[in-house]
Amino acid sequence: MQPIRIQVINGNTFAPMTQGIDESAQAARSPHTEVMTTQPQAGPESIESYYDEFLAIPSILETIILAKDQVDAFVIACWGDPGVEAAREITTKPVIGIAEASMYVANMVAARWGIVTTQHRTLDMIHQTVHRAGFSHRCVSIRTTGIPVIETETARHSTIEALEIAGRLAIEQDKAEALCLGCAGMSRLDLELEERLGIPIIDAVAAGVKLAEAMVGLKKQNSKVLTYQLPAAKPIRGYPNHMQPNRL
Amino acid sequence: MQPIRIQVINGNTFAPMTQGIDESAQAARSPHTEVMTTQPQAGPESIESYYDEFLAIPSILETIILAKDQVDAFVIACWGDPGVEAAREITTKPVIGIAEASMYVANMVAARWGIVTTQHRTLDMIHQTVHRAGFSHRCVSIRTTGIPVIETETARHSTIEALEIAGRLAIEQDKAEALCLGCAGMSRLDLELEERLGIPIIDAVAAGVKLAEAMVGLKKQNSKVLTYQLPAAKPIRGYPNHMQPNRL
Amino acid sequence: MQPIRIQVINGNTFAPMTQGIDESAQAARSPHTEVMTTQPQAGPESIESYYDEFLAIPSILETIILAKDQVDAFVIACWGDPGVEAAREITTKPVIGIAEASMYVANMVAARWGIVTTQHRTLDMIHQTVHRAGFSHRCVSIRTTGIPVIETETARHSTIEALEIAGRLAIEQDKAEALCLGCAGMSRLDLELEERLGIPIIDAVAAGVKLAEAMVGLKKQNSKVLTYQLPAAKPIRGYPNHMQPNRL
Amino acid sequence: MQPIRIQVINGNTFAPMTQGIDESAQAARSPHTEVMTTQPQAGPESIESYYDEFLAIPSILETIILAKDQVDAFVIACWGDPGVEAAREITTKPVIGIAEASMYVANMVAARWGIVTTQHRTLDMIHQTVHRAGFSHRCVSIRTTGIPVIETETARHSTIEALEIAGRLAIEQDKAEALCLGCAGMSRLDLELEERLGIPIIDAVAAGVKLAEAMVGLKKQNSKVLTYQLPAAKPIRGYPNHMQPNRL
Amino acid sequence: MQPIRIQVINGNTFAPMTQGIDESAQAARSPHTEVMTTQPQAGPESIESYYDEFLAIPSILETIILAKDQVDAFVIACWGDPGVEAAREITTKPVIGIAEASMYVANMVAARWGIVTTQHRTLDMIHQTVHRAGFSHRCVSIRTTGIPVIETETARHSTIEALEIAGRLAIEQDKAEALCLGCAGMSRLDLELEERLGIPIIDAVAAGVKLAEAMVGLKKQNSKVLTYQLPAAKPIRGYPNHMQPNRL
Amino acid sequence: MQPIRIQVINGNTFAPMTQGIDESAQAARSPHTEVMTTQPQAGPESIESYYDEFLAIPSILETIILAKDQVDAFVIACWGDPGVEAAREITTKPVIGIAEASMYVANMVAARWGIVTTQHRTLDMIHQTVHRAGFSHRCVSIRTTGIPVIETETARHSTIEALEIAGRLAIEQDKAEALCLGCAGMSRLDLELEERLGIPIIDAVAAGVKLAEAMVGLKKQNSKVLTYQLPAAKPIRGYPNHMQPNRL
Repeated sequence: MQPIRIQVINGNTFAPMTQGIDESAQAARSPHTEVMTTQPQAGPESIESYYDEFLAIPSILETIILAKDQVDAFVIACWGDPGVEAAREITTKPVIGIAEASMYVANMVAARWGIVTTQHRTLDMIHQTVHRAGFSHRCVSIRTTGIPVIETETARHSTIEALEIAGRLAIEQDKAEALCLGCAGMSRLDLELEERLGIPIIDAVAAGVKLAEAMVGLKKQNSKVLTYQLPAAKPIRGYPNHMQPNRL
Repeated sequence: MQPIRIQVINGNTFAPMTQGIDESAQAARSPHTEVMTTQPQAGPESIESYYDEFLAIPSILETIILAKDQVDAFVIACWGDPGVEAAREITTKPVIGIAEASMYVANMVAARWGIVTTQHRTLDMIHQTVHRAGFSHRCVSIRTTGIPVIETETARHSTIEALEIAGRLAIEQDKAEALCLGCAGMSRLDLELEERLGIPIIDAVAAGVKLAEAMVGLKKQNSKVLTYQLPAAKPIRGYPNHMQPNRL
Repeated sequence: MQPIRIQVINGNTFAPMTQGIDESAQAARSPHTEVMTTQPQAGPESIESYYDEFLAIPSILETIILAKDQVDAFVIACWGDPGVEAAREITTKPVIGIAEASMYVANMVAARWGIVTTQHRTLDMIHQTVHRAGFSHRCVSIRTTGIPVIETETARHSTIEALEIAGRLAIEQDKAEALCLGCAGMSRLDLELEERLGIPIIDAVAAGVKLAEAMVGLKKQNSKVLTYQLPAAKPIRGYPNHMQPNRL
Repeated sequence: MQPIRIQVINGNTFAPMTQGIDESAQAARSPHTEVMTTQPQAGPESIESYYDEFLAIPSILETIILAKDQVDAFVIACWGDPGVEAAREITTKPVIGIAEASMYVANMVAARWGIVTTQHRTLDMIHQTVHRAGFSHRCVSIRTTGIPVIETETARHSTIEALEIAGRLAIEQDKAEALCLGCAGMSRLDLELEERLGIPIIDAVAAGVKLAEAMVGLKKQNSKVLTYQLPAAKPIRGYPNHMQPNRL
Repeated sequence: MQPIRIQVINGNTFAPMTQGIDESAQAARSPHTEVMTTQPQAGPESIESYYDEFLAIPSILETIILAKDQVDAFVIACWGDPGVEAAREITTKPVIGIAEASMYVANMVAARWGIVTTQHRTLDMIHQTVHRAGFSHRCVSIRTTGIPVIETETARHSTIEALEIAGRLAIEQDKAEALCLGCAGMSRLDLELEERLGIPIIDAVAAGVKLAEAMVGLKKQNSKVLTYQLPAAKPIRGYPNHMQPNRL
Repeated sequence: MQPIRIQVINGNTFAPMTQGIDESAQAARSPHTEVMTTQPQAGPESIESYYDEFLAIPSILETIILAKDQVDAFVIACWGDPGVEAAREITTKPVIGIAEASMYVANMVAARWGIVTTQHRTLDMIHQTVHRAGFSHRCVSIRTTGIPVIETETARHSTIEALEIAGRLAIEQDKAEALCLGCAGMSRLDLELEERLGIPIIDAVAAGVKLAEAMVGLKKQNSKVLTYQLPAAKPIRGYPNHMQPNRL
């Protein structure tokens, strides 16, 4: 049997986070799965604003274009799922956003769940992601910690302390029964946090990898009849040849 | 490595459908997964009404109780996910409904999707299932065929003909880009229907099995802090000892 | 004039609660109405989880089947309205759930209202009931007390104390202007609680009885064209003859 | 026992419609109920636009003010429930709008229902009424006939013909299982239309009267703590003394 | 070039507020715009209840009828937009409600915003206005101050103190990023409040005037094909000749 | 008085469309407004897919950065409002998307409205834009024509023919009362289409310009307390110095 090859793409360009995401992804993969974690050539060191997000997307898409013949599925490892709809246009292979993956998992283990995340300013981005997914009636808590994305990797101790405080408020005040870690940088903190809080904590990167494996196993391709058709051939200025639609 | 053991539970008591579900589940499972397909001791031969559904649930739950120490996850194989919330109370193991599983998969392969299903009278049941899941903005078509559940197994040819007609209307009139097969009895018709219609067709049983594998791989248990706590000890008249809460 | 005959069905099998519900129903009925309160042969002593609820439903439905030629309407006296859709399939007579009845009444006396109820774990069940009914924009508060259902009958004093505390929070923090008593066991506490809190308190059993009388007066039968058709004839294993669809 | 006294208020000033509404209300009332049907002193002959509706409301409210010590409940007999929130402010007695009453009844007899009504231009008014009530997921069809309100009284034959056509489309194309008659002038056509269409047809006036009786029986007053408090004392120019808040 | 003529209509009959609204409107208008601020002949001194609102509307509409040939657009200056749909029926000229105008502006300067307003009892009116507009996912805070409408003009100091307190709660607890002043009487307090709170404060009257100018500039008339057609000719009793539909 | 300076940014890089947008914007501007229309340095020739959209955004944002000290407001002239949230982070000046602008205008002239647009594949993009804005209850029709964006400029005759056909379906089948032109390339077709269809047709570019003028007149800046704060300083690889957050 051929191994399943999954490319996990850190949404940002901070190498230590790519490393951390890889650890989580490798731990989550099945034995017969190969996981290759990478980061875009270009884009922000961390994604904490709409500006960061939109500047990250082109290179995320380029990463997918360059790898699409070598892998079986893609995981976009940034809570917010930047570019996921576009990615589904440019490949027939499954593309999983870790936000949606972790929310699906949360739905399957808890009736009411929440999200704990980084900077306060991302509150609206998280809220819109939940709303767009249709889970406003299931997600009962969004708690930001004020921790910058970078520090989720570089200051693990204070990150977990902050997550514990936020998580306790989510449980006690909002009656959350499970929590999604709302940033790829927080992955691998789930077990420690589960121990402290006593409820399921979803590592979104792990959720993304497992759903990617499931999708490859199902052998379903992205629909190509309407929305997710290959982009029509046309010049796209300022982008390299391999990103031109007629080369996709 | 221990194999993953998944019990797939046909929601109804029609043995040929259990057999058909098993074929689909076996085809979908990973090599290291063991799938055991079963059907409840009691309940309707087919589920086509709320009455059927509610009479099916107790025995579905009993099936889970009896197996919960032997398996790693459960798939409730009836579009409508009968009893899934209760099942999550009585076990810490993942419980996957095939309706939710197939809708998650549909979300990942298509921007707009629909459902093709059996008797016309199930329209509201399907509609409520979609609404409860939060996907009213993604599910653009629910098309019933008038085919009884039993005939999805016993009259494969007319079933696929009817599904093709319904599916074509979903694509052309409602602009659906993928379709969920809204009945466990329709499983294994996905490839033939894909060929006829040219869009992804989701076999809900297969989707359930793959998501169950993913959930086992994630090693997350059902939250036990609020909604999905074990039912409190109390007498439940007319049910066997092994279904009494103090024995769970 | 023929009297109106209403069967009120306690959702659970705790006889003192059946007695308490009967008192409320008798107090609420019009002079020309006969109320017969009963409880299912089988099922949990109290309904506080999805498991309890699903195990209660078959015998609730059986109760309706056995009485359907003798009465003019049914009230399912359990906040959560277990089995109400199925009940409407098996009879043409009106079937009223006390949750929906009390929410309709709340809508007619207050712009914003809430629900006070029993165990904390029922929060999601209540929330889903409100969401399913369409009243998320009217129901501004769901407050659980931690009181077990049984104690609503056996510990009236502490129940009303707890309801007062919960109600005061609903009024002061959530700006609720009326409250539904979210458990049949709480019926007959409405007047005392109204006095303490100064807002309308809806006894859901009383609301159910009055709406049942109204429905009988309107002489409307359940629609039999699509969803609420009689269940199709088929064997339902493990259930008595009188519950088989071909005998309904 | 004191009889229940219900005032039914035709929303408009077309006397033949008031007479028709009275017939429906008298037929629907219980033996121990007295129904007095009236119409406002001022306002449009028929309500078919927002302009008509807003000019009708002050006199509807005046009618309630003048009668509030003589009756036990009010029914505002115009689909759209003009002024119902204000009416609940100025009296503690139940005030029932026939739109909400008929939608509650529809919910209790059918999973999916629709509305058939008068002028095409009222489509948005009906749609907003359904949306405001929270029933967008239950109301699957709004069909206008182009019949002016006045003609619902004066041209009964063509009205019922038009309703049959609209109703058949609602059943066949939109899968409605019951229909609300979306105009007080259509009352008493329910039985004839039921015979033609084979599904429950809700006479909204009858629904309003029965719910009013139910509310009186429940002995609940409108909440007076926040929204429905008596209007604060202040001069209201151009209105008679008895409509000034300090006289209410 | 012809100047743009905008009539701003205070919803109530309190002359000092009309004066205050005029100051705000004059300050907001473009140099080539003429603003005429007026108040209805009849109606309540202040609008703080549904009763007040419904009694205000006929004279607001009369004001528009009398001016409709002299002006280019109307602004209804009462948060709640009383009568705006009817106004659009009786004129082809743009009619802007200050509630909708201020919410549109809020959407354009902030991801999450709130409303600070007057009497506590208006909470539901504000909430329904937001819900009707479709902005429940953007409006994260509605804070009432308990200040009567009249005092927003006559007690400016205590009003701004109360608004500051309410606004601070909206920012800190609800994470609002901008605030609409939810009463026309609060206009001209925006700059002072912005200074105190550090976020954009929307003067709804100013917002209404600027959107009215924009609409006149676009040269679009109200749609006259369905909902906003001119009201059909019919007698409207108790209203003057110039308000009869056949004279509109 | 200083003139108002508005930069209108064509979302794509097709110069004839920039020219067409400019004509519409110049025609819509007030005499004291200066409009400068431009197009991004990089990005697709036309935006017809999520891929196109995401590749267009960075250069749209760059355009804003380069101009932000020279102009008073920005209009992003692409139906879908690409990058509008990010743009509000990087400037305090108003940023208006033409989709939101045209939907606000539609709300003010019609109770029910629709959108006519280009390629069939954009159906989901349009639908999501409406859903995100909160107008699912007002937008009753989305009709695609199959016309490529480029042809809206280069094949005006067939474009208007196709729009008329789509518009007539929107009016007759979906009961739309006004239509937004769902592509910047369709601007200046509004008057011709109004004549053919008899309902208001909204030129989204014109709507954007007028709302931008209104926003400048209101002197409100984007909120800088939470979501729309300036992006935090951090390296963004592959982007020029002037796009680095510490230079914004």
